[in-house]
Amino acid sequence: MADPHFATRVRASFDKCAAVHTMGMRMTDVEAGRVTLEMRHHPLLTQQHGFLHAGVVSTALDTACGFAASTLMPREAGVLTIEFKVNLMQPARGPDFFVEGVVTKAGRNITFTEGRAYERGGEAGERLIATMTATMMTVAGREGIKH
Amino acid sequence: MADPHFATRVRASFDKCAAVHTMGMRMTDVEAGRVTLEMRHHPLLTQQHGFLHAGVVSTALDTACGFAASTLMPREAGVLTIEFKVNLMQPARGPDFFVEGVVTKAGRNITFTEGRAYERGGEAGERLIATMTATMMTVAGREGIKH
Amino acid sequence: MADPHFATRVRASFDKCAAVHTMGMRMTDVEAGRVTLEMRHHPLLTQQHGFLHAGVVSTALDTACGFAASTLMPREAGVLTIEFKVNLMQPARGPDFFVEGVVTKAGRNITFTEGRAYERGGEAGERLIATMTATMMTVAGREGIKH
Amino acid sequence: MADPHFATRVRASFDKCAAVHTMGMRMTDVEAGRVTLEMRHHPLLTQQHGFLHAGVVSTALDTACGFAASTLMPREAGVLTIEFKVNLMQPARGPDFFVEGVVTKAGRNITFTEGRAYERGGEAGERLIATMTATMMTVAGREGIKH
Repeated sequence: MADPHFATRVRASFDKCAAVHTMGMRMTDVEAGRVTLEMRHHPLLTQQHGFLHAGVVSTALDTACGFAASTLMPREAGVLTIEFKVNLMQPARGPDFFVEGVVTKAGRNITFTEGRAYERGGEAGERLIATMTATMMTVAGREGIKH
Repeated sequence: MADPHFATRVRASFDKCAAVHTMGMRMTDVEAGRVTLEMRHHPLLTQQHGFLHAGVVSTALDTACGFAASTLMPREAGVLTIEFKVNLMQPARGPDFFVEGVVTKAGRNITFTEGRAYERGGEAGERLIATMTATMMTVAGREGIKH
Repeated sequence: MADPHFATRVRASFDKCAAVHTMGMRMTDVEAGRVTLEMRHHPLLTQQHGFLHAGVVSTALDTACGFAASTLMPREAGVLTIEFKVNLMQPARGPDFFVEGVVTKAGRNITFTEGRAYERGGEAGERLIATMTATMMTVAGREGIKH
Repeated sequence: MADPHFATRVRASFDKCAAVHTMGMRMTDVEAGRVTLEMRHHPLLTQQHGFLHAGVVSTALDTACGFAASTLMPREAGVLTIEFKVNLMQPARGPDFFVEGVVTKAGRNITFTEGRAYERGGEAGERLIATMTATMMTVAGREGIKH
């Protein structure tokens, strides 16, 4: 059953997600089937050439995709990432990043999502730096976290 | 031309990679075509259920794979991740993690790699928690960082 | 340099691609950065439950994505798939299939593409059955086919 | 419950899979968690440069991975591919191909697999031409085929 209070639930869950706060991510939009995040370039999150680490970009994309899936899940369900793939189009210079996750197909057990990450505010203007496709699994509360 | 001093070069490059130090990763083995990392579970790097965030696991895998590719590249070359895919078999409880990246095929422009992440030291003993396949690109110094 | 005659070149190359004809695929639109294909369900191309085999759906998606990349390449260049990932949302019942490949970022060496496959004409109407992200490599004629 | 007659069941299911016979694939080994296939290069299955089409290589890999997962499933269950990713290391010249699928982690609902495709019998000897990671879903008979 759809959860009418999904936005409150998803924002509360995001608040408990320590890694994304450590990396300075903020949740902006929470709609049915769509979540957006924002973050900034930070020298503590770079790879050896000074760009945002691909793993950090992936963390943001996975988070947006996972919570987008969660908006369509029942109240008591948890969401787990089964797999994701990232394509990295551009080195992530920033200074600002905008990340969007959307559901492409929601199922009872499996939800398919797509994410896009953009950089903003730099010389090149807004541009697509990475895309993700991610598969999410609905985890019922009583089953615990098991594939 | 192969670089006889690849281990020194790769370790120096890892030292400049801020994100992996922020996440507490240490480089252990550096062999031709193979790099290993270790890290520990940390409350600042978790998702909402208390497991290590999939994005952090991916950061470690991408790092091991990228530097494994780098060991086989010329001295002056840089390495960029074009894409990777992660499969997540188990929630990452830890408390210890061991991550390995190996080259499956090295080419002049494109190098294919695979990674595996294991947790250790917990009740379940050592077990495979995630795998990665990643495609790396050799970037010549004079070209700058461009796909 | 962009090739003003890309459509003629791409259609001629598609004609030389035996596998897609064996599977009954037809190329419909050929635009700069976008190619579409059509095909029908066929009993010789099914998996054990009678749906179109995921490998056949992938062949169509890879073909649409590869030729979409080719439209933006120089006249003498060849295109090779480095990797692709497919997400399979629905069993492929058909009876008709429509497949679209688009370029998300074209580079000198590497081009990123996305594909979508839809079924049509059945009880469920038009619906998305699969998506692809694929990375294509430009291969210069004089270098031969080498990664 | 594990199925002691998995090999008979898997071979019977392979026999009903029309696409793989159209492409000339033969199932060789069927062990618990591992399946191998063989096929030959054929001019009707090539792309525009005369190599085996990446989609055909993917069909073989997906088939090996799917049936490898099936060996560990209950007797009445079906297997569906949720997603796969292929990395293509070498153009597929053949003339012979050997494909192996293995289970990396079997779960009640979700099974993770890996595949490798090799060419044999040509000038370059045996070499790895492609790898796959694929996620398979167990489908109970009474539920029908639904994600």
